Amino acid sequence: MNVKLHLTPTSFKRSDLADNVAVVIDVLRCTTSICAALSAGARGVIPTIGPGEAVDMWTKLGSNLAILAGEREGVRIENFQLGNSPLEFTAESVGGKLVVMTTTNGTRAFVESSQAALVLSAALVNIGLIADRIVAEGRDVAIVCAGREGGFSIEDTLCGGMLIDLIAAEQRGELDLNDAGSLALLLYRSNKTAIKQSIAQGEHGRYLTRIGFADDIENAAAVDSIPVLPVLQDGRLVLEQ
Amino acid sequence: MNVKLHLTPTSFKRSDLADNVAVVIDVLRCTTSICAALSAGARGVIPTIGPGEAVDMWTKLGSNLAILAGEREGVRIENFQLGNSPLEFTAESVGGKLVVMTTTNGTRAFVESSQAALVLSAALVNIGLIADRIVAEGRDVAIVCAGREGGFSIEDTLCGGMLIDLIAAEQRGELDLNDAGSLALLLYRSNKTAIKQSIAQGEHGRYLTRIGFADDIENAAAVDSIPVLPVLQDGRLVLEQ
Repeated sequence: MNVKLHLTPTSFKRSDLADNVAVVIDVLRCTTSICAALSAGARGVIPTIGPGEAVDMWTKLGSNLAILAGEREGVRIENFQLGNSPLEFTAESVGGKLVVMTTTNGTRAFVESSQAALVLSAALVNIGLIADRIVAEGRDVAIVCAGREGGFSIEDTLCGGMLIDLIAAEQRGELDLNDAGSLALLLYRSNKTAIKQSIAQGEHGRYLTRIGFADDIENAAAVDSIPVLPVLQDGRLVLEQ
Repeated sequence: MNVKLHLTPTSFKRSDLADNVAVVIDVLRCTTSICAALSAGARGVIPTIGPGEAVDMWTKLGSNLAILAGEREGVRIENFQLGNSPLEFTAESVGGKLVVMTTTNGTRAFVESSQAALVLSAALVNIGLIADRIVAEGRDVAIVCAGREGGFSIEDTLCGGMLIDLIAAEQRGELDLNDAGSLALLLYRSNKTAIKQSIAQGEHGRYLTRIGFADDIENAAAVDSIPVLPVLQDGRLVLEQ
């Protein structure tokens, strides 16, 4: 099985992903929040790139059906109902609703990956189910790390490395990895006993702690704590039936 | 000392590098070839982004003074006198001349780094001198990996990690690393006894072997084999006096 990891969503062409399973990872915090939202009973999450596009979509859907969520520089966008903390996505806030979401890095990664045959939303909180689904699908895999402001992100790369480790264990046969995939695997295996600390000590982790979101790191680092399988269907992330 | 490593030249703003020492790394093969050219007696190397710009510059300088070198997809550009193999830069081919050079990734990294207080050209072949120079300078450091086609490159990251390891040993005080710097250091320390093999087995290494440049890898992996110190002055790389 061919597994390519991309440290950022800008290091591949969209057409490269045709016939692949694309796995989007934004541990802090987009894909963690997507798991939280769907697990809390949201009908779907619609990733959009810009706040303007998000507001247009939300207006079109109507406030009975939809709710606006998003951040810039980690903080809730003004006039949006929700920010990007997984703890905000509860049955009360999102149950039965469509969440229109825009985040700095994560939602763009979904748009860049949308030409893949199957698009999954992965985080540490649902990594085990993601690995199972990939092995069941049997296609080549593109792991798309959302990264941070155009650069690489240690938590997404670590999560991608863990996914490769799990696939390798389930798959048995040799995996054909690209250089970034080998690097991610090395990063994971060097930090597997200290995942939470590695994330907390990273640039983004320290930033989130500074602006008051230390709990989100704890939450995002809890491996397999929200076992759901979000797939992209017609532009929205829903639980796979 | 603050040391930031950038996996690609697109993950920072040019103005971020003011007051820094910028260290450009493109092991396969631009910065290795720059060392080879200057060591062979070239008067300077002028990095340019595109072949058109290179030809214009060469025409302006005249063929008595200047020579055109460059590659696309690893192969010498048509009508250019030299490609990008370090073995081509000999006293016969470049002695006394200005080399106008354009490569896919490396020369762009110099342009992106040009606003730094001091710009050095580093490869494995001159890594020891580079570390000494950085420690002597005492400024914050930006290590700019050229990468490959917009993505990360294992050989540049490994070389950046080795540079950090050397600076840490010389500097004694704590280094303040960004996440990519920590990752590069991990990559180097995990592969320090097998540098040549790591490069040869990487994507770019395998590609170069396939198109007939296996000797270049051997050459580029020879640590401290070309101990010269190329610095950028007025748009050209010259040996520091």
